[in-house]
Amino acid sequence: MPVITVDWWQGNDRAARAELVAELTRTTARVAGCPREAVTVLVRDVPRGHWATGGVLADEPADRPAGTR
Amino acid sequence: MPVITVDWWQGNDRAARAELVAELTRTTARVAGCPREAVTVLVRDVPRGHWATGGVLADEPADRPAGTR
Amino acid sequence: MPVITVDWWQGNDRAARAELVAELTRTTARVAGCPREAVTVLVRDVPRGHWATGGVLADEPADRPAGTR
Amino acid sequence: MPVITVDWWQGNDRAARAELVAELTRTTARVAGCPREAVTVLVRDVPRGHWATGGVLADEPADRPAGTR
Amino acid sequence: MPVITVDWWQGNDRAARAELVAELTRTTARVAGCPREAVTVLVRDVPRGHWATGGVLADEPADRPAGTR
Amino acid sequence: MPVITVDWWQGNDRAARAELVAELTRTTARVAGCPREAVTVLVRDVPRGHWATGGVLADEPADRPAGTR
Repeated sequence: MPVITVDWWQGNDRAARAELVAELTRTTARVAGCPREAVTVLVRDVPRGHWATGGVLADEPADRPAGTR
Repeated sequence: MPVITVDWWQGNDRAARAELVAELTRTTARVAGCPREAVTVLVRDVPRGHWATGGVLADEPADRPAGTR
Repeated sequence: MPVITVDWWQGNDRAARAELVAELTRTTARVAGCPREAVTVLVRDVPRGHWATGGVLADEPADRPAGTR
Repeated sequence: MPVITVDWWQGNDRAARAELVAELTRTTARVAGCPREAVTVLVRDVPRGHWATGGVLADEPADRPAGTR
Repeated sequence: MPVITVDWWQGNDRAARAELVAELTRTTARVAGCPREAVTVLVRDVPRGHWATGGVLADEPADRPAGTR
Repeated sequence: MPVITVDWWQGNDRAARAELVAELTRTTARVAGCPREAVTVLVRDVPRGHWATGGVLADEPADRPAGTR
């Protein structure tokens, strides 16, 4: 019944995703007191050019910080 | 005004998406009592390697079930 | 496996939600070719003061439309 | 940078949420190779009458299962 | 701390995304009274064949409008 | 057609929400080249006890930081 979404950087491989979903599910099932089979996890790989912190896309070169644009 | 998102398996073709959004919209407009034009539907095709139930990615081969890892 | 979210107006009662989730699930299971038990639906009731179309909150009195602000 | 959302049953208390976010963050930071401070977690408590599996709201009494409606 | 998601049409280029996230962040930081660095924005490019208004996919040819299907 | 969601701290009043959605809509419509009426914004007020950065709920007292738990 718990549904978990993870938006993270593109570039993590399948092994990383497998480890992530296994651990997130184990934790959530234990804390929620539900069977692991009840937990759904969706992992979304976000390209750096589609994510911003502080108003600057994450693929912005370091020599052109937000303040100078 | 209603906004619907559907996360489902990658692999459904355009005809399936067209049928899905037409019916979801018809149902939601009728139950909500709003015009169909007010309903927005987003369909996201999720690769099996990005979705997990029970802590196991959905593209895991059947001979390596969750319990054996 | 399909996960559906519906954001709609606050005010629909339990009978409306029950009808909505039953029909959305039936449609999605049929089009996706999966058992109904695989479909999860989340319904979120959004207060009109937290939703905007055209830049105007939906609880804005009709005599103060967007264009006059 | 990772953003995690968890939709789970209403009823878990603050201690459960604190444990959940601490562990989800630790796991995600380790697998993603980023500092914990980069991880954001949102926890949404969903009332049972707003969540359905198999087309039946989760607050449906057990004596009126989906198949009989 | 604010997290913003934008689902819009596929086709906008990087310059458009950079302008979008810069302005959305500036506005949100000012209204929320928080530093810009606290604002995260995710931009999702949605193909027209995965988005519907009024029950019709947005890549539907104009000569086959919703009403005629 | 663009759909924007904003998850921010509970506590902002209606005037803040009205200003937020008006400006987010204006920006998005201009950058996307679409009419303002095509933009939908959903604002979600998140209680501090349901949001975590760095694995610590945001309502955690300052004298009990993450590192000491």
